[in-house]
Amino acid sequence: MGWMQGFPPPPDKRITQPDSVYFSFPKLRWSVCHMRQLLPSVEVSRGLGNAVPLAYAPGSERQRMEAEIDALVFKPLDERAPMTWEESLGVNYTDGMLVFHDNRVVYERYLGCLAEDGQHAVMSMTKSLTGLLAQMLVAEGALDEQALVVDLVPEVAGSAFADATVRQVMDMTTGLHYSEDYSDPEADIWKYSAAASPLPKPAGYTGPNGYFEYLQQVRPEGRHGEAFHYRTVNADMTGWLVARASGKSVAELASERLWRPMGAEQSGYMLVDGIGTPYAGGGLSAGLRDLGRLGLLMLNEGEINDEQLFPAEVVRHIRGGGDPSKFGTAYPALIGGSYTSLWWVYPGEHEVIAARGVHGQTIYVDFTARVVIVRLASFPKPSNPLIDPTSIPAFQVLCRHLQQHQRR
Amino acid sequence: MGWMQGFPPPPDKRITQPDSVYFSFPKLRWSVCHMRQLLPSVEVSRGLGNAVPLAYAPGSERQRMEAEIDALVFKPLDERAPMTWEESLGVNYTDGMLVFHDNRVVYERYLGCLAEDGQHAVMSMTKSLTGLLAQMLVAEGALDEQALVVDLVPEVAGSAFADATVRQVMDMTTGLHYSEDYSDPEADIWKYSAAASPLPKPAGYTGPNGYFEYLQQVRPEGRHGEAFHYRTVNADMTGWLVARASGKSVAELASERLWRPMGAEQSGYMLVDGIGTPYAGGGLSAGLRDLGRLGLLMLNEGEINDEQLFPAEVVRHIRGGGDPSKFGTAYPALIGGSYTSLWWVYPGEHEVIAARGVHGQTIYVDFTARVVIVRLASFPKPSNPLIDPTSIPAFQVLCRHLQQHQRR
Repeated sequence: MGWMQGFPPPPDKRITQPDSVYFSFPKLRWSVCHMRQLLPSVEVSRGLGNAVPLAYAPGSERQRMEAEIDALVFKPLDERAPMTWEESLGVNYTDGMLVFHDNRVVYERYLGCLAEDGQHAVMSMTKSLTGLLAQMLVAEGALDEQALVVDLVPEVAGSAFADATVRQVMDMTTGLHYSEDYSDPEADIWKYSAAASPLPKPAGYTGPNGYFEYLQQVRPEGRHGEAFHYRTVNADMTGWLVARASGKSVAELASERLWRPMGAEQSGYMLVDGIGTPYAGGGLSAGLRDLGRLGLLMLNEGEINDEQLFPAEVVRHIRGGGDPSKFGTAYPALIGGSYTSLWWVYPGEHEVIAARGVHGQTIYVDFTARVVIVRLASFPKPSNPLIDPTSIPAFQVLCRHLQQHQRR
Repeated sequence: MGWMQGFPPPPDKRITQPDSVYFSFPKLRWSVCHMRQLLPSVEVSRGLGNAVPLAYAPGSERQRMEAEIDALVFKPLDERAPMTWEESLGVNYTDGMLVFHDNRVVYERYLGCLAEDGQHAVMSMTKSLTGLLAQMLVAEGALDEQALVVDLVPEVAGSAFADATVRQVMDMTTGLHYSEDYSDPEADIWKYSAAASPLPKPAGYTGPNGYFEYLQQVRPEGRHGEAFHYRTVNADMTGWLVARASGKSVAELASERLWRPMGAEQSGYMLVDGIGTPYAGGGLSAGLRDLGRLGLLMLNEGEINDEQLFPAEVVRHIRGGGDPSKFGTAYPALIGGSYTSLWWVYPGEHEVIAARGVHGQTIYVDFTARVVIVRLASFPKPSNPLIDPTSIPAFQVLCRHLQQHQRR
């Protein structure tokens, strides 16, 4: 669409601060690939070694498989008529699509603003990265999931987090007051945004500076442990717990434990607040294939390139899921599923877990079919329940197809 | 010194906006390795291939050579007593030092905030990257060095640049009004800083937004072509000429023509203004060894890893120098030298060119001794004439030493 083309770009094609401008459709179609150009960031370093190439289905086989996949037909979960997989790419504003079956790439597409050597915002999929790191620390005995948060992070005494357990934070079953009433200038969403912004605070600003200060003043509402409530601040709190338990920021630990040893081909990056804290709830941008490597690590319970990067029980816990009775009905396509360690656990015949980020970001891991799907997108609406109807049945039909058509 | 350690860092150890805080000593000792954490940036992508390893002198030989180099003694250009090379590393607040002789690494040190997988601000060495790209375009016929700037960039009609030639801009012999009187709130330096900042402009701001708009309102002073005046805006103007001639930003062209083909081991990055323009006058951060690869490209006139990345005449022009009679006396250690294509050409017995950046950044290429030195530093004062007395004689004694002690 010509965004940011030319030297300088014409005024009507420029994308700049503030976020209300750059992160609304259609500008977000460019912004999702250029977050670091708009905001400060830290590297999630791949280190200096060679990447470990992904395994690909051989050329002719992959060509055939891609054609078969493009022709798959599914019925959306809403009133829309059946559509093909290929049609769904456009409907879902897909920027990148990568599919593995049995650890081999069988389908790969770059669309929109994304190139194979580019990085795309993964939004709330960042939570699942943070949750994976936390679950690794739990499995290794460095983080006690039954501890009260205040015993590990005394700074939150007096906040709603103080008497929650680490597990409740990781499962988002905390009882927190958090209003997203955009018409209320005192709503928590605004206070959170102001605290999180890395830009200099306005004159006279007296609110919290950064994620950590914000977390210290979150008020309680309801009881911990009773129900799943999707609140990003739980992921930021998990990030703080990870940093306190490991002595490394989420970005540093993700580099050390994942990006470097998994043979990533690009460094990723994370947006930061004004004191350099990586945004554990949504700040990651990364390459499509490196997100595929994360998906393979989940599918294979910590193993990649013949190395075990973390104990298998990490993924086994996540596969085991949270308590479905606490999950509620806010996500119509996922009723009967659950949420644990900042991962989504899907209902249905196949055993599926997923990382999900707003505007259509997904790492979808189907253990039954041995399929990993990574979909990056810039879907116009900031609501995944609106993209689920043309995504979940597409992913399901693909997984069934691949399961039935084993390597020939 | 404990900067930015802990989650969160203690208030007295935090480094944040504004630049008057984070870029003054001692905080700059941390900031030079973390510019992207403070400001938006764009990647200078290395691409996805494997790095091409540098050649190293074998272990025992290098150990001996490093010990010999550390023990070298030189007399500073000022009144200070003779000091050893090793002592000069501390005196000069060295963060990274890499020395090649005959294309092999013979000395390598990481100090201060720099690690081998980190990136360091190179400050005005960025100008020499921009100048190299411009000189490549000149050699390839894509940029006419005798053209008037206004004929290539009509937007600067009415500014001092309009009737300058491309060559005058690349050699900084333009006649420009540019005041750095910090006590004058109307001084150009403030207007330039305000225009360049990627942070949202203050309410009521009516000045130029970004480098390109700033360049359009630079006023003339004196005549073009008469004398060398070191003015950063000439590098920004060169960056605009590069972008207009190539259709790519300086960051994109640096990736395509240098970082990717030279086998860089890390992506670099460039800071940007509020409309995404990379700061061609000073915005690059990069890894020490990748800057070494740039130095090797200069030493070997465009060749690296048995590939010729650009015509030899590019470096031959720079080696040939500018007009020493226009150079003046502002740089006491360099009198008799010259400046061309945004590179420094040193006086003296050996044939030397250099990229130089404030606070001690240097790529020093001695063609006579076949030595490349890359020094990254966080010298407290923003004035290279203050670090030259303990740098230039050190580099000279090192080059003579290496020249005399050929491979044994």
